[in-house]
Amino acid sequence: MKLVTVGSVAFDAIETPFGKTDKIVGGAGTFISLASSFFAKEQGLISVVGEDFPNETLSYLTSRGVNIEGVQIKKGEKTFFWSGKYHNDMNSRDTLVTELNVLGTFDPIVPESCQHADYLMLGNLSPQVQLTVINRMAKRPKLIAMDTMNFWMDIALDDLKETMKHVDVLIINDEEARQLSKEYSLVRAAKIIRQMGPRILIIKKGEHGALLFHGENIFFAPALPLEEVFDPTGAGDTFAGGFMGYLAASDDDSFENMKRAIIAGSALASFCVEKFGTQRLTEITTEDIDQRIRQFVSLSNFEMNLNGTH
Amino acid sequence: MKLVTVGSVAFDAIETPFGKTDKIVGGAGTFISLASSFFAKEQGLISVVGEDFPNETLSYLTSRGVNIEGVQIKKGEKTFFWSGKYHNDMNSRDTLVTELNVLGTFDPIVPESCQHADYLMLGNLSPQVQLTVINRMAKRPKLIAMDTMNFWMDIALDDLKETMKHVDVLIINDEEARQLSKEYSLVRAAKIIRQMGPRILIIKKGEHGALLFHGENIFFAPALPLEEVFDPTGAGDTFAGGFMGYLAASDDDSFENMKRAIIAGSALASFCVEKFGTQRLTEITTEDIDQRIRQFVSLSNFEMNLNGTH
Repeated sequence: MKLVTVGSVAFDAIETPFGKTDKIVGGAGTFISLASSFFAKEQGLISVVGEDFPNETLSYLTSRGVNIEGVQIKKGEKTFFWSGKYHNDMNSRDTLVTELNVLGTFDPIVPESCQHADYLMLGNLSPQVQLTVINRMAKRPKLIAMDTMNFWMDIALDDLKETMKHVDVLIINDEEARQLSKEYSLVRAAKIIRQMGPRILIIKKGEHGALLFHGENIFFAPALPLEEVFDPTGAGDTFAGGFMGYLAASDDDSFENMKRAIIAGSALASFCVEKFGTQRLTEITTEDIDQRIRQFVSLSNFEMNLNGTH
Repeated sequence: MKLVTVGSVAFDAIETPFGKTDKIVGGAGTFISLASSFFAKEQGLISVVGEDFPNETLSYLTSRGVNIEGVQIKKGEKTFFWSGKYHNDMNSRDTLVTELNVLGTFDPIVPESCQHADYLMLGNLSPQVQLTVINRMAKRPKLIAMDTMNFWMDIALDDLKETMKHVDVLIINDEEARQLSKEYSLVRAAKIIRQMGPRILIIKKGEHGALLFHGENIFFAPALPLEEVFDPTGAGDTFAGGFMGYLAASDDDSFENMKRAIIAGSALASFCVEKFGTQRLTEITTEDIDQRIRQFVSLSNFEMNLNGTH
């Protein structure tokens, strides 16, 4: 198995200016695994759910090539639940409810089938849980990527810094990069953060795209300009999943290939926001993704002669 | 003469977190002409200054191929003066002083040498003055581009809308696009604004780059990620100048060539912010610009196989 992900599998209830859902399936692990399944044909998921979690969702993940041996089902307990409401600009949201439930005592099990993966994606979880997963691998994966958020910077900074020492790629947003580095300039922030451990840094800027810092190089991936963002929930996880799935399938961490992996992630994220939750990710085909990647080519690429010639 | 620009030639006094200037030469017309001179070897400038304006600056513009027959020098009057202070994030500023002086009664003269230009750049000025310049051309230029700002939307919206009917390219920032269209989504804003006249729209997003809306296509040009922005004054005008200079020199308004023109503008703007005022634009060479454009290629371009292949 090439790729293993640890991340929450959850229920979300979402309110946006366009509508409102009841409890639907969400969670970083779900979005990441669905997104990466377009590229990585076999992968493992490590997570925990309660007895209330629908079997059909787990079966669906299996049908997409996701090995769920590492997903613990806790009898008599409830699945992690998050509820939030987006503001009109869709760039900010209020959390209405957070019920940790099974996630509060999550002790990740890494089954034998997952212990030799070359690529490990640590979805946003407590840095201690993330480190535990690294330690429970039989060998150090070729590449470990980690998502995190400001919450852990506020309450578990030392743990976060410890886990960061063990990863190759950190994926955070611009505000988090500024908080973690105490620098406003993202170029300076990147220098400081990369001294903390990760040799590669991806800074997500929402509707403004994403920056990749790799060796001495920087790549700027645009977000697809959209008429409307219907529901941003899971877009960041979908981006990370598309990125890691592409990377695991191509098994090449050069700058040029990481650019492609980021475009793959951006393309998938641009679908994710078109409907509530994971719905759009369950509808699209490889052809849809290729079509969207062509839009990114037109959006980003240009050819230019130099030496003052036109 | 291929290109003519109308725009202010002014004095600025600037304060940033990095330092402070006395009165230095600034003004949209100055930045635009200097930037476009790297590509357009002959051009005209239409503006007005007071008796206090230094002759050496006008001579310098002439040495850069700028025909200044259209720059009126008003005896006994003073040059437009602006003073501003940037906040720590460099994204916002307070205007400390605005003395219109000669600009208050500016009646643009378009000399015979400029009346047949194929490319006309309307720097940020009152929409009435901009329209007057269009009307004083002997023939309708091939392409007219226009900059404006929220100030004119607030106090002269009808005039602005009238002038917009006569232009091909509108260059504004994201806030202005939202104010003008009353739409938050820039894709929707672009649709509405392009129905007002300009067939091509460029939305500048500062450190987040710029969007080009051209026919059915969208291009996203990144801004160069910089460790620090020393002084943003004139960056937007420099961008517009590089864009129009490149366009006039290449005489091709296709989507692919407009992409190149925007990268040319972005490269020049990335130099502009490195020092106070126009200083950096007087130092750089064509080789420096080519070098920077190579950075943009690395920053933006990627090659990707489709159909699920990697």
